[in-house]
Amino acid sequence: MRILGIDPGIAIAGFGFIDKDGSKLAPVQYGSIETVAGTPHELRLKQVYESASSLMDTYKPDCVAVEKLFFNRNVTTAFTVGEARGVILLAAAQRGLPISEYTPMQVKQAVVGYGKAEKRQVQEMVRMFLRLAKVPKPDDVADALAVAICHAHFSVLQTKLNEVRRR
Amino acid sequence: MRILGIDPGIAIAGFGFIDKDGSKLAPVQYGSIETVAGTPHELRLKQVYESASSLMDTYKPDCVAVEKLFFNRNVTTAFTVGEARGVILLAAAQRGLPISEYTPMQVKQAVVGYGKAEKRQVQEMVRMFLRLAKVPKPDDVADALAVAICHAHFSVLQTKLNEVRRR
Repeated sequence: MRILGIDPGIAIAGFGFIDKDGSKLAPVQYGSIETVAGTPHELRLKQVYESASSLMDTYKPDCVAVEKLFFNRNVTTAFTVGEARGVILLAAAQRGLPISEYTPMQVKQAVVGYGKAEKRQVQEMVRMFLRLAKVPKPDDVADALAVAICHAHFSVLQTKLNEVRRR
Repeated sequence: MRILGIDPGIAIAGFGFIDKDGSKLAPVQYGSIETVAGTPHELRLKQVYESASSLMDTYKPDCVAVEKLFFNRNVTTAFTVGEARGVILLAAAQRGLPISEYTPMQVKQAVVGYGKAEKRQVQEMVRMFLRLAKVPKPDDVADALAVAICHAHFSVLQTKLNEVRRR
């Protein structure tokens, strides 16, 4: 199963494709979609949408994982993050990809085993899970990989739960 | 000049196309794009995007007017409004339509002549400007028409300003 994790944003959106084979995780491709400040707002959204679409068509994920609405930032940030999130989810919906959303606490719980873990702990665990030489930079990329790993863990749990139910 | 005013939202997005001929304004088509609660989030975004795209292709506006980010609502609302706004602005950008943004105060100032006007005053002025028998319902539709009227007024001012500068 190939998972695309996304950390949406209009200036920078992190993305990470990982393959899950049983309990093994492997990084496929990760990085960021960046747009230039000063470019008209709607063109930046179009760039994010086109880059996200093209990445999905190139790396063909089976599903998309993204952080749930968060409540601890300011309204202006929420607005522009929401816009970027909207065009990325649209690209996924147009390809019929299932989307899973996780709270920041679920991501930390899944990656570090502790829902209130610090950012650096999450990043270090992302590096270890994917056997990377360094923590991916900028933070948005590590965050995108973290939510992808979170989805991998939850989907394992889901499969086990379904097996138990079938007995 | 045909102006499309939009009041974005994921449950309901108001839209209003108006024609401006000199100082005369005429309604062309207005209404709302509504999506059903309980439908997966990303599918609702896709529906908003497809409806907005189809309306733009049918009524061929020359420009789009939308309210600027506002700061007085809660973060969750900002997030989902942002998502809907994102896919609508994307549809406009894909058609090369210029987008103008106005603050709620600018809209009230342009429509009522008073930046702190009440919602009902704005709605009544929208009705009068467009010579409608009734205030369009729901509120989102009247709000979309209000921002379109605001853009019509500002573009008249802009034209006059350009004429003065040319002298």
